[in-house]
Amino acid sequence: MSQKLPKRSEDYSQWYIELVKRADLAQHSPTRGCMVIKPYGYAIWERMQQQLDGMFKATGHVNAYFPLLIPKSFLSREAEHVDGFAMECAVVTHHRLKRDPNGTGVIVDPEAKLEEEYVIRPTSETIIWDTYKDWIQSYRDLPLLINQWANVMRWEMKPRLFLRTAEFLWQEGHTAHATAEEAVEETLKMLEVYTQFSEEFLAIPVIQGIKPEHEKFPGAVDTYCIEAMMQDGKALQAGTSHFLGQNFAKAFDVTFLDAENKRDFVWATSWGVSTRLVGALIMAHSDDDGLVLPPSVAPYQVVIVPLANKPEEQEKVLPVAKNLENHLRQAGIRVKLDDDDSKRPGWKFAEWELKGVPVRIVLGSRDIENKTLEIARRDTREKESVAMEGSLTYIQNLLSSIQTGLLDKAKALRTANFHTVDSYEEMKNVLQGDKGGFVLAHWDGKRETAEKIKEELKATIRCIPRDMPEEEGKCILTGAPSKRRVIFAKAY
Amino acid sequence: MSQKLPKRSEDYSQWYIELVKRADLAQHSPTRGCMVIKPYGYAIWERMQQQLDGMFKATGHVNAYFPLLIPKSFLSREAEHVDGFAMECAVVTHHRLKRDPNGTGVIVDPEAKLEEEYVIRPTSETIIWDTYKDWIQSYRDLPLLINQWANVMRWEMKPRLFLRTAEFLWQEGHTAHATAEEAVEETLKMLEVYTQFSEEFLAIPVIQGIKPEHEKFPGAVDTYCIEAMMQDGKALQAGTSHFLGQNFAKAFDVTFLDAENKRDFVWATSWGVSTRLVGALIMAHSDDDGLVLPPSVAPYQVVIVPLANKPEEQEKVLPVAKNLENHLRQAGIRVKLDDDDSKRPGWKFAEWELKGVPVRIVLGSRDIENKTLEIARRDTREKESVAMEGSLTYIQNLLSSIQTGLLDKAKALRTANFHTVDSYEEMKNVLQGDKGGFVLAHWDGKRETAEKIKEELKATIRCIPRDMPEEEGKCILTGAPSKRRVIFAKAY
Repeated sequence: MSQKLPKRSEDYSQWYIELVKRADLAQHSPTRGCMVIKPYGYAIWERMQQQLDGMFKATGHVNAYFPLLIPKSFLSREAEHVDGFAMECAVVTHHRLKRDPNGTGVIVDPEAKLEEEYVIRPTSETIIWDTYKDWIQSYRDLPLLINQWANVMRWEMKPRLFLRTAEFLWQEGHTAHATAEEAVEETLKMLEVYTQFSEEFLAIPVIQGIKPEHEKFPGAVDTYCIEAMMQDGKALQAGTSHFLGQNFAKAFDVTFLDAENKRDFVWATSWGVSTRLVGALIMAHSDDDGLVLPPSVAPYQVVIVPLANKPEEQEKVLPVAKNLENHLRQAGIRVKLDDDDSKRPGWKFAEWELKGVPVRIVLGSRDIENKTLEIARRDTREKESVAMEGSLTYIQNLLSSIQTGLLDKAKALRTANFHTVDSYEEMKNVLQGDKGGFVLAHWDGKRETAEKIKEELKATIRCIPRDMPEEEGKCILTGAPSKRRVIFAKAY
Repeated sequence: MSQKLPKRSEDYSQWYIELVKRADLAQHSPTRGCMVIKPYGYAIWERMQQQLDGMFKATGHVNAYFPLLIPKSFLSREAEHVDGFAMECAVVTHHRLKRDPNGTGVIVDPEAKLEEEYVIRPTSETIIWDTYKDWIQSYRDLPLLINQWANVMRWEMKPRLFLRTAEFLWQEGHTAHATAEEAVEETLKMLEVYTQFSEEFLAIPVIQGIKPEHEKFPGAVDTYCIEAMMQDGKALQAGTSHFLGQNFAKAFDVTFLDAENKRDFVWATSWGVSTRLVGALIMAHSDDDGLVLPPSVAPYQVVIVPLANKPEEQEKVLPVAKNLENHLRQAGIRVKLDDDDSKRPGWKFAEWELKGVPVRIVLGSRDIENKTLEIARRDTREKESVAMEGSLTYIQNLLSSIQTGLLDKAKALRTANFHTVDSYEEMKNVLQGDKGGFVLAHWDGKRETAEKIKEELKATIRCIPRDMPEEEGKCILTGAPSKRRVIFAKAY
């Protein structure tokens, strides 16, 4: 803890790497491209899971579990899907190792070669729609509203902890519907669930939009997304929700009889968020001293640090600190009493700052005499001496004001770095400037144009925002006519 | 639902297979040896997870996540471990597919061969202990009390849904300690947690014991287990807790400095339960009409079936049924109102019986006039007409009496099929009889003896029970001296 983190303003990327490491969130593993999620990082993911799972259930979804391994031939059943996913996947070819006859280790047993290889799921549309074929006969079996919590793999040569790893944890919803309208409605409903989750729970404001044709999910008719801005002005796709049309139903021959006894292919959606969100959470709120966690998602919302070195002080302070801990816990607050007497208070302050605990309470013998607590908030670092009596309400209000404060701060950052531009020069200045940001500009709808901009400015079209009115204009690069603005940004 | 299940007394194995299928718990998948866990089956597993996770946290454990893929060479670092697990694992050899130049599908890209192959984790001791090396330097870093919820794979040629599948879901605890005593204490503590979970939550009584040398976990010093008896008298290992000594610390060079600044290898435990428990739950309690679920683990504890065909009846009955549903839900009861008017009551009765819902409430217009409810319990099929007023308490008591009743019934079954025997002839009669059961007999401690008995009677030593006093005797097969009795049984 002696060494400071790199400053965000000097090296944002290194700041992130060091923060993930020092705050004990995750680390690289001996398995190429894969991470170990350490207990503190996993506790954040667990909070997210719990909240999302509740929201999925409240919207009528149930969980199920499908196999990790997908028969190789399944991938090529949907024409676009195979190009998107077959090219970066882990392939299982054998089912046994054996002792190396010429050494001490083990080798792959050539006699245990599989007839058909499997891939580790990069996403589960194929195996799930193959299964849905058995589950769906008539309109009475619809809608089918299923979610899966799982690990997936996409081979990744340049991993970044949480943001891009070969294996990651996620949830994938896969729903089946009798009509296109209903499937589109589901797609948008889940986009809304993700938006609410991101803004209310993670305090990360997002923009809802639709991906341009060339950026959509392989196999989707439409890909909707939520895009968040990180503190360095870059975009991070925080969740996607796909309207899959009848593409997978056709690929896996999933039909149903409607109420008029006519047979049709089933309509589909899929939607997912992943451990990437832990990366987004870190980059949206944290500062040069460490994590800043919104109270909703923080593993500990409050840490109590007793100030008591001598035994007689400890005797006086510790029982009060324990009482306070119990009192807060009973009120439903996630609280940690740090009574480890091998560490000094100063060390603890820095450590819990690094770990992003929203509220710190310091309690010494003088506080006990005065019947006060010193309460500090992590986000603004404001400290206040508060009367013990009634402090629970104070703390509850503080937690909720930190939660809102973080969202407001993130919104302000986004507003400050959100630029409506009408010339390529201007766009260049924004995207190559220190702060980067989102650029709202006209685009002619052509893939080549988007690719040229990507090549020159390293920025991609993040989405066509949903709430933007149509507006006649000219493409920022080609000058060709355009009907609406889209968002360009560099992205994670 | 027209067709009856096979009777347990006629074909227990087919009864199990059909029940799993008809109660919508799970099905086989196109991926060899793997299952799809359907929503109703998964909901049971979720309840188990939630309960266990709470118990792990209450005993000081935290969750983390380690990679799915383990470098091949890791497996051979621990001498016994490799023999146990290298022989039945999924091997990843490539990281890309490509279009088949001679066809329409995809083939493994030979240029994407991995330098070192990976296996899909059959269990995670190796990769976890490789990671612990970085986490443990001094006694201050100990104990390390970590659990992981994950999927694992062990290649399986003869899968049985839940009981034995290539991929299964589980939790694996991996703890590190400064002393052997502390690690043994942890091993037994988790055995106790599993026992409590099994008996109090699943209503399955278990016997705690230790595995004989030749049945222990590859790499363990001692393997403790809990053994449950199924209704056909067979044993099912419901959980294991291993004292690993310093074996993995030595294999992965994990040492620590103790308080006296002396360096020593770290002491380890690991412990796990899996989706197998869903199989155990089914086989322990269910009957010829379907599942019988203990209220603690049942996705729905109560189902309300309104009796109302005509619109005027529905108008009268449905609001009361909905009220009752809300009332029960607010009291924390998991309740389902089955108001689907495309199905007849008789169909619903059979369906919810099949699904094992502990309590069924029937509510018709006459009940409304009389201010009563017809309440039936799934386990004993007793029905009673109960006054609406105060019915919540009645239902709460009923749920708790079903929970205890199931445990008592399972205990009685075990007592009736638990035989202390002193001759091989007697043992043969029990194990080859209709009911099977557990046989408590003397054994000379020799592997050959156990193997001979296994060959002849298809029974294995389930465990050396923990609570049995020492007792001089003679081996049931060889007559050689023995110091204590062990449990023999056929097993799943």
